Amino acid sequence: MLLYVYLIAITAEAMSGALAAGRRNMDMFGVSLIAFITALGGGTVRDILLANYPINWTQHPPYIYTVIAAGLLTMLIARVMHRLKNLFLLLDAMGLIAFTVIGCDVALRLNYPTVVVVMAGIITGIFGGILRDILCSRTPQVLRQELYASVSLLVALLYLGLMHLGVDHDINLLASFSSGLALRLVAIRWKLSLPTFSYAERWYH
Amino acid sequence: MLLYVYLIAITAEAMSGALAAGRRNMDMFGVSLIAFITALGGGTVRDILLANYPINWTQHPPYIYTVIAAGLLTMLIARVMHRLKNLFLLLDAMGLIAFTVIGCDVALRLNYPTVVVVMAGIITGIFGGILRDILCSRTPQVLRQELYASVSLLVALLYLGLMHLGVDHDINLLASFSSGLALRLVAIRWKLSLPTFSYAERWYH
Amino acid sequence: MLLYVYLIAITAEAMSGALAAGRRNMDMFGVSLIAFITALGGGTVRDILLANYPINWTQHPPYIYTVIAAGLLTMLIARVMHRLKNLFLLLDAMGLIAFTVIGCDVALRLNYPTVVVVMAGIITGIFGGILRDILCSRTPQVLRQELYASVSLLVALLYLGLMHLGVDHDINLLASFSSGLALRLVAIRWKLSLPTFSYAERWYH
Repeated sequence: MLLYVYLIAITAEAMSGALAAGRRNMDMFGVSLIAFITALGGGTVRDILLANYPINWTQHPPYIYTVIAAGLLTMLIARVMHRLKNLFLLLDAMGLIAFTVIGCDVALRLNYPTVVVVMAGIITGIFGGILRDILCSRTPQVLRQELYASVSLLVALLYLGLMHLGVDHDINLLASFSSGLALRLVAIRWKLSLPTFSYAERWYH
Repeated sequence: MLLYVYLIAITAEAMSGALAAGRRNMDMFGVSLIAFITALGGGTVRDILLANYPINWTQHPPYIYTVIAAGLLTMLIARVMHRLKNLFLLLDAMGLIAFTVIGCDVALRLNYPTVVVVMAGIITGIFGGILRDILCSRTPQVLRQELYASVSLLVALLYLGLMHLGVDHDINLLASFSSGLALRLVAIRWKLSLPTFSYAERWYH
Repeated sequence: MLLYVYLIAITAEAMSGALAAGRRNMDMFGVSLIAFITALGGGTVRDILLANYPINWTQHPPYIYTVIAAGLLTMLIARVMHRLKNLFLLLDAMGLIAFTVIGCDVALRLNYPTVVVVMAGIITGIFGGILRDILCSRTPQVLRQELYASVSLLVALLYLGLMHLGVDHDINLLASFSSGLALRLVAIRWKLSLPTFSYAERWYH
């Protein structure tokens, strides 16, 4: 089950990367690369930080083909993609949650402290988008918009909390997914966001 | 002793990260993340480059809590921080030097060549600030301003030189710290900087 | 032979990094750092992704001195460099191809799947330039201009294909180099580029 959700997740993330590359007028190669990094970059950063070698996608060529194909496909269907907006945001939210759970599992397996497990989940969830935005020279969107990284944090905490309480794993996954999805969709619908910090003084560079 | 200086260092770096995030109107999550990366990112890059696993902060949760708390606290006291400008610049300079010495020690322990030891010190000292600036989409400040990276280079060379000469370790630390601090403060006071390179021709992209 | 080409390659890449740093008015230290990262960053990213430790340049101090010297030298001769434009573009193309072949060899030695071998070649070839552009806050040029990353892809495929067919290694190198060089120079001369993707709709961030 989680594998299917994962494939949907990397496809959705790859498409979001391709759209961002399109805003910078990149060529086909750039689109493929940004798609790849957006979809698989979060897991890559996690694996490097946790020394979880070999890195996941290097052992699974189909993941590589999937995200490149999704990126190139996006070039073709870009003109009609806004009609799929709601579906796309739903898949993107599912991806965020799936990545978070998978990231926690990896760090748990390697016996990292709980706070690092939570961070591994969040890093897997949001770092693809952060790398995408760095490569497209813009300030990371996931740190300024409707609740996104916070959804990842909530899912990680809920997932670990329920696990700690001994809740059945399938029920745990169901609860974590539905809570995260509900929060994300409510956040998009009503434009909920965290308090922001605006600072303009120039005394310090 | 070095531990206390280290804690002061990561606190000061986290605060500088939070201020930079505030200039980009990030949310609380973004502030925490940039604070974390600014404070612990230099050591992380060093550990990855030197294969010094597990990465330091993954084994020390208190460091993680410290930098996130420092980042969030900065949001609260931002309005009065300019009054602490001089204290802040002092702590920032101490952080730069502490990071440099710690970075050299890590590479020395792993028997890297001397030039790599120097680079490990500098990377630990300045890469947190470089990652901060990349995430806030601006050209790295530490490569354009009053002597900063150069202070790190001087400290690394002095520290290794005195070690090579067999100087007592405590005296070495004292000499390296005071020289580095003096140079940095003199550089800020009199706006000393390295020669810059300005190039505007367009024949090459 | 490949070693000499490699030294030329890192020198040319270091110079391109120094010029980019000059466009951002960086100081001598910044010029050295960007030169270093442009020349050796691609191989570093490859080594980290493939867990190919210790990272190559940490065991070869002369590479480090070469790229820093090349960066600083560029500051001195910048005013006349446009006269060497054609030579420079030739060396840059040779560097791209040498990096690609070396990257493939590293991944082959570590028994990664073929698609990862191709990616290792491309990453070695183009990631130095991508890191350079990230540090100089501009959208990566290699993903928007005349065929560049594509040359790396072609060289990787040709090199692996001829190897698979059992072609003698020296002949293989000669064929891969000359094909890659020809394609790159033709692309520069006639401004050949891949189709680009331009997307301006705002429904998605």
